[in-house]
Amino acid sequence: MSEAVRAGEAAALDAADGLAAKRAEFDLDDAVVYLDGNSLGAPPRGVAGRLADVVGREWGRLGIRSWEESGWWTAPERVGDRLGRLVGAAPGQVVAGDSTSVNVFKAVVAAIRMTRGAGEGGGEGEAPLRDEVLVDAATFPTDGYIASSAARMTGCRIRAVDAADMAREAGPRTAVALVNHVDYRTGRLHDLPGTTAALRAAGARTVWDLCHSAGALPVRLDADGADFAVGCTYKYLNGGPGAPAFLYVRRALQDRFDSPLPGWNSHADPFAMDPAYAPAGGAVRGRVGTPEILSLLALDAALDVWDGVDLAAVRAKSLALTDFFLRCVEAYVPQGGVESVTPRAHGERGSQVSLRYGPGAGEVMAELIRRGVVGDFRRPDVLRFGFTPLYTRFADAERAARVLGEVVAEARR
Amino acid sequence: MSEAVRAGEAAALDAADGLAAKRAEFDLDDAVVYLDGNSLGAPPRGVAGRLADVVGREWGRLGIRSWEESGWWTAPERVGDRLGRLVGAAPGQVVAGDSTSVNVFKAVVAAIRMTRGAGEGGGEGEAPLRDEVLVDAATFPTDGYIASSAARMTGCRIRAVDAADMAREAGPRTAVALVNHVDYRTGRLHDLPGTTAALRAAGARTVWDLCHSAGALPVRLDADGADFAVGCTYKYLNGGPGAPAFLYVRRALQDRFDSPLPGWNSHADPFAMDPAYAPAGGAVRGRVGTPEILSLLALDAALDVWDGVDLAAVRAKSLALTDFFLRCVEAYVPQGGVESVTPRAHGERGSQVSLRYGPGAGEVMAELIRRGVVGDFRRPDVLRFGFTPLYTRFADAERAARVLGEVVAEARR
Repeated sequence: MSEAVRAGEAAALDAADGLAAKRAEFDLDDAVVYLDGNSLGAPPRGVAGRLADVVGREWGRLGIRSWEESGWWTAPERVGDRLGRLVGAAPGQVVAGDSTSVNVFKAVVAAIRMTRGAGEGGGEGEAPLRDEVLVDAATFPTDGYIASSAARMTGCRIRAVDAADMAREAGPRTAVALVNHVDYRTGRLHDLPGTTAALRAAGARTVWDLCHSAGALPVRLDADGADFAVGCTYKYLNGGPGAPAFLYVRRALQDRFDSPLPGWNSHADPFAMDPAYAPAGGAVRGRVGTPEILSLLALDAALDVWDGVDLAAVRAKSLALTDFFLRCVEAYVPQGGVESVTPRAHGERGSQVSLRYGPGAGEVMAELIRRGVVGDFRRPDVLRFGFTPLYTRFADAERAARVLGEVVAEARR
Repeated sequence: MSEAVRAGEAAALDAADGLAAKRAEFDLDDAVVYLDGNSLGAPPRGVAGRLADVVGREWGRLGIRSWEESGWWTAPERVGDRLGRLVGAAPGQVVAGDSTSVNVFKAVVAAIRMTRGAGEGGGEGEAPLRDEVLVDAATFPTDGYIASSAARMTGCRIRAVDAADMAREAGPRTAVALVNHVDYRTGRLHDLPGTTAALRAAGARTVWDLCHSAGALPVRLDADGADFAVGCTYKYLNGGPGAPAFLYVRRALQDRFDSPLPGWNSHADPFAMDPAYAPAGGAVRGRVGTPEILSLLALDAALDVWDGVDLAAVRAKSLALTDFFLRCVEAYVPQGGVESVTPRAHGERGSQVSLRYGPGAGEVMAELIRRGVVGDFRRPDVLRFGFTPLYTRFADAERAARVLGEVVAEARR
């Protein structure tokens, strides 16, 4: 009976969903409940046709002229502006390209240099005033690895601090804090405006990793005074496997953005082939080498699904979906079978639900996938379910929880 | 009459060309003579279909499972090995990904660290024994910009030296030399084995930039004892606009390769999500973040055209094409109209011909393109023609020279 009630509730919620029509814009297998969009978003239908045109006409017929005529050369900024709208950045502050890791390196090194000021001659050889890099203790690992390299190359040391404690831990030697906006394991949403303001008050900069928030919820980089941000585009932004990442540098900081990767694409006049480097202004300064155009234009096409979408509506649906899923899990999964590590409070939740299962979690997820419910497993014991409001239905949430209940019950026998 | 003789000669050369059938594997516009493959190679016909399958089936149907089931995760090494065959590297030493600029940064920093030895504790803060980075004075600019950044971040200084003089200029403070294998402006081929050996004798390392030689002529990285090499894949390798670059680290140096960009893809166990970095062995250590899979698999498909191709035959045709083009230019272009800056000697020539024209070169190239002969213009006065042996015909070389002769003659009136 419980199942009929939940299923009816799901049907009613789907019927009332103002974003429901968006699902048709994605190429999805209706036999599968796809809750792994926080790892790899599903393909928007427009991508295949756009890529065929890029290969056949832009590359095949126009060839080298496409750098200008098809807008290839400026695509990193143009796509960056489209991403900017989704993360609360006015045009001219976001550039698409490279991987998240490479962008973390640019941002952290540039932030460290900025705290040392322009008058100190680069300063890497001197004893720095600020030599501490705070890293989110629960960070997605690559951020920590790259921040360590940035620290090593600028004479800093790394200190791991809980994201919630950054404001308290920042001190006079802190140069920069690198924080995940949403924790990739637990789905916890961290306080971007508060942490940024506290770090700034301490004389430090903040670099936000938006991998698990961009496209999942409203991000207000400009309004919240963010300094730097990076993020990927292959999760909630559905840009395709390994789609180009992005870098945000607040406009007021751009002239002091001193990139450790000053490739020719960031030169003020790249085709002058000047032996001396002169940085471009604006977001372009965050570029490095020639962008991977096929992946970049696939992302460009993928972003079409966001035209006219209000992020507030996305957020409302995301919270409704994860609330509903948690209620279904409570109803379907045997008592004590799983424990949510995702915060209940809306203000602390991203767009995923992570359930701790204990030993055997990997096998539980494998069985879920065999039964057509695709989430993912994060060692040692977490079952992770991502909810992409543009294509996930309440019926999907109900089915996922129901199948999870069955699998957990069977595992207990 | 001269035209009839040359055209007849071209027809005979094309008829005898053992690589002539390869042209059918490319999507080319027969109305155009495309001599800009040294900037952007033409699309191999297999790319479009492969991309459609990657988007529709691998991404659309298999989704996240494709990281394993479709081999996405190991694609950088797998594609790297395919590239390795074309640059004389045994498997396990080349990895595809990132841009050439980013790979220059990895290689130069790692080379500097290597000359300082493992026992010096990283050493960037100490006075280094070797603190000089030699950069090819005529380098493609991005290499110089990035090398400067690498030097700045490791306490080194940069010195610009002619590629031909590297061996003589290397001294006891030289850490690394960064050299272009083929000069992008003049098409001059530099001495890879001799320069590498001389630098090694001086206790320094060499990083070769193969952007204008990979796929254009036989490169023998292993046999010639190269330490590091980087290159792009969108020129003679036809991988598509901004296709992923590659990094070669000689096997004997891999265990000491200390990357400045230690992203999670280079971790020994990336899915352990270990907060501590532990580098993978082999070529994988050169990876950084998540690879741009669509661009990477387009490159993979593009490399199919090389199956069974002997680089010695490619070289023989390349030299025959450029010899023939130079003869046609002599025959067709009014005396004193252009001057070749590409060496006549085969041992010093890449696969392009660069002609100095003087003021107005940009307009001459624009007119050539209007008449269906696509080369490119490099400021201030160079007309550049790239010859891709897999698809360029001797008839193309004859037509290009003939049209150039007409345009130059008209410009004189």
